[in-house]
Amino acid sequence: MTLHPVLIAGEWRAAQSRRSFRSENPALGEQLPGEYPISDWADIDAALGAATAAAAELRTSPPERIAAFLDAYAARIDARKAELVDVAHAETGLPKAPRLADVELPRTTGQLRQAAAATREGSWALPTIDTKLNIRSVLAAIGPVWVFGPNNFPFAFNSIAGGDFAAALAAGNPVIAKANSSHPGTTRLLAEEAHLAATEVGLPPGTVQLLYRTSHEDGERLVADPRTGATGYTGSRSAGLKLKAAADAAGKPIYLELSAVNPVLILPGALAERGAALVDEFATSSLMGTGQFCTNPSLVVLVAGEGTEQFIAGVRARFEAAQPTPLLSSAVLRSLGESVSALQTAGASLVTGGGPATPGYRFCNTLLRVAGDAFLADPERLQTEAFGNAALLVVARDARQLAALVEQFDGSLTGGFYTDTRGSDDALYAELEPLLRPRVGRLLNDKMPTGVAVTAAMNHGGPYPSTGHPGFTAVGIPAALRRFAMLQCYDNVRPARLPALLRDLPPNDRLFRWVDGEWRRGPLPSA
Amino acid sequence: MTLHPVLIAGEWRAAQSRRSFRSENPALGEQLPGEYPISDWADIDAALGAATAAAAELRTSPPERIAAFLDAYAARIDARKAELVDVAHAETGLPKAPRLADVELPRTTGQLRQAAAATREGSWALPTIDTKLNIRSVLAAIGPVWVFGPNNFPFAFNSIAGGDFAAALAAGNPVIAKANSSHPGTTRLLAEEAHLAATEVGLPPGTVQLLYRTSHEDGERLVADPRTGATGYTGSRSAGLKLKAAADAAGKPIYLELSAVNPVLILPGALAERGAALVDEFATSSLMGTGQFCTNPSLVVLVAGEGTEQFIAGVRARFEAAQPTPLLSSAVLRSLGESVSALQTAGASLVTGGGPATPGYRFCNTLLRVAGDAFLADPERLQTEAFGNAALLVVARDARQLAALVEQFDGSLTGGFYTDTRGSDDALYAELEPLLRPRVGRLLNDKMPTGVAVTAAMNHGGPYPSTGHPGFTAVGIPAALRRFAMLQCYDNVRPARLPALLRDLPPNDRLFRWVDGEWRRGPLPSA
Repeated sequence: MTLHPVLIAGEWRAAQSRRSFRSENPALGEQLPGEYPISDWADIDAALGAATAAAAELRTSPPERIAAFLDAYAARIDARKAELVDVAHAETGLPKAPRLADVELPRTTGQLRQAAAATREGSWALPTIDTKLNIRSVLAAIGPVWVFGPNNFPFAFNSIAGGDFAAALAAGNPVIAKANSSHPGTTRLLAEEAHLAATEVGLPPGTVQLLYRTSHEDGERLVADPRTGATGYTGSRSAGLKLKAAADAAGKPIYLELSAVNPVLILPGALAERGAALVDEFATSSLMGTGQFCTNPSLVVLVAGEGTEQFIAGVRARFEAAQPTPLLSSAVLRSLGESVSALQTAGASLVTGGGPATPGYRFCNTLLRVAGDAFLADPERLQTEAFGNAALLVVARDARQLAALVEQFDGSLTGGFYTDTRGSDDALYAELEPLLRPRVGRLLNDKMPTGVAVTAAMNHGGPYPSTGHPGFTAVGIPAALRRFAMLQCYDNVRPARLPALLRDLPPNDRLFRWVDGEWRRGPLPSA
Repeated sequence: MTLHPVLIAGEWRAAQSRRSFRSENPALGEQLPGEYPISDWADIDAALGAATAAAAELRTSPPERIAAFLDAYAARIDARKAELVDVAHAETGLPKAPRLADVELPRTTGQLRQAAAATREGSWALPTIDTKLNIRSVLAAIGPVWVFGPNNFPFAFNSIAGGDFAAALAAGNPVIAKANSSHPGTTRLLAEEAHLAATEVGLPPGTVQLLYRTSHEDGERLVADPRTGATGYTGSRSAGLKLKAAADAAGKPIYLELSAVNPVLILPGALAERGAALVDEFATSSLMGTGQFCTNPSLVVLVAGEGTEQFIAGVRARFEAAQPTPLLSSAVLRSLGESVSALQTAGASLVTGGGPATPGYRFCNTLLRVAGDAFLADPERLQTEAFGNAALLVVARDARQLAALVEQFDGSLTGGFYTDTRGSDDALYAELEPLLRPRVGRLLNDKMPTGVAVTAAMNHGGPYPSTGHPGFTAVGIPAALRRFAMLQCYDNVRPARLPALLRDLPPNDRLFRWVDGEWRRGPLPSA
């Protein structure tokens, strides 16, 4: 069996590698054809060298080249859709339709096209001009960006096609993608199209590169390498925190999306008003994608009572009626089992599920419950992330206990409230919202968190430990681009030497600039 | 002698402290009256508790209260100007006029008033609204902010009156100031006025607090405390990196301004065209404030030749003709001597100066030179920061060597080029600028870096190790406020529950919001 080549400096070349890995079909628990290299440092070094050269060239090239690449790449993904969906389905077990073909792939190409539009316009970079002092500043490319994509979105968060990739490119940076080991074949197909699109529009050869995997030691070394500009990482907390420590020690920005339990508080009035609908809404959201979303609602808080017991019975019935769908890998299966055990050890009891299922890597749809008092006795362990189709219901003794529960919540990507429409929950909402608000990135009302719209107003981020910094979002253009940028000021610099975004005459008529205290379009007042 | 009280929870109270310190008059090398406590953890804990309560209250209070405080505080500083200038002069040795009275104090009150205007308007928070999906996001207060101010700006970067203080408050956060140990008396007077202004406008009692000093261990603990929102630190690289490591490990944002050599390249045409004027410009900038500016030009690069020898002779004459002015403390004097020795050990030779002077803590105005070849042999040690009135001239073998030199530069706050007005340096500029640009936060043309204008377009930041993150600036409103904020998204949240900046009807008619892809003022299109 031949080892798949890596993409370095604009060429598919044999990896410098002494080890390899294969991917699996998790729905069946079988190995898939194809062997992928675990690159040595020599590959990483070569990729960083090529990316550094590309970064220098991109700095003085018009944004239109990158925009054209992003558009061409999106068109190529659309054209190869059937094959991409087949391979991603085989590697992840996610349904071809609607998930992969109708939701995730269009979202991916949509992100690339939105990124293209943002880079053409330039407003993302917050150009700022003081006309009286002739001081001007703008966010600009930060240098080679490493992207470590997660296992759960083979397209939309793919290292070489997803949100971080699009954002880093659109901010003017070359990207070195580190494939997720659970879908290397999908990543290979995407990289082929990215490479062809980059060649087509004439991007420098080190702009888009792919390695499949590295050792953990080399991972910690590469995020800290002097040539690295920044890193985007989405994945497990333990691996992410090791990379963070290495990058932090070298003063290299790293943006992490780690884990979250995404608490949902169902207040008593909402439960009384529309309990059956909430069962449906929660069960659907909870089991979607086999629960493998960063924003899966895996901790639900209710107040003890008859309605809550009916809710639990309803969810249990839904969980038991649904066939367990595949998990992404044997590692996810093992980790889910361990998390469910840890929750039980900490005091939660099983309502349903709790063990593996067949065929392949599956786990019975799992519901656990714990009393509010027990939660307060061990809040840390009872917030163990159970990534997959498992959820924990916390049953508060009474409404007065809710505040104490919320005050124990760790940072999460999202948090939500369900309240009734007649105002009976409003006083409780007013008490609890100020406690939950600073603990989550996105606050929802009457809505489950699993839909992450790609809009400028989205925040797919949140307080530590859900991410590494609460000021940034991984989804949403233009804000996501600003992560991969440095602030560059020009003080008294001669007009012809200024970058296009800061010249008296702007490069396009849509560009907004903060000029003397106002967002303005068009030429400078004096120009 | 009584120990000065600390300001905790709205009261001046006796510190929990077993150790104390005094400040000195560095111009004379004599201790000043007044004994200041080194607080135990009990003080820190109490301050964090009060700040946490204040943060919760501030979150729902109108920005006008903070704005009114900032304005009232600025007015109080103006009213107590004479005493403030006297005490700051005694503690720092900086001239009363023009420096303290006519430059730094007005700059400080100007910053506070700019911050007040920014918080009233709200555009700093980049409110972003998707009207179709009803998703809205905004930057919001991050929680209690610690400010560690530096020794070199007793007013404008003071922990309880300077840029970080103003930015953190204006972003809606309480501040706990940790005074710089070299000017506790100045800080005490400022804190008195801050406290009175806060009381006057009715801010929560934990909004503005002051501790004079803590142990290093407690410093590392407090930046990582769960109640801490973020930290702003300006000071020495070694102490800053210890705080950074502690904050990073806890996932707490910390913004650092550490050190910089601020390279200036004088290209051959500029030297030929106006060598005598450049001697004057450089010597003035280099010795200003006894060279104790973060943006002091302490590394100047020239090309070997007759003009360069004349430049060096000219600067030497200026350095020798000027009486050395006082350094800020005995620690600065000691550190400067060590740095100058380290530069000599690494291969630089003294042109003039190199040793201490009297009275008090002074050092002879010091000029060193080193050949480009020697610099390239040990670039790290030859970029040792010499904080104070010392500068290193690097004499390149020829113009071709300049690129190699620039490629060895560490991250700095600023970097500049002097070029001639007839275009003879343009080709060299075009070659070198792409190498220098990513290494500095602010790029200058034909201008020394020591003037840091407080304007929205300023970047007082730069790549590591000059700061901890190249995307942020410590000076410049509104950008400086965004450091002390978290991104908060509201997804499907009911209208009455939205924060003022995100409601359909904006709280004021100056506010800009990014609505459906454009910066707009006024009500939402649908409203």
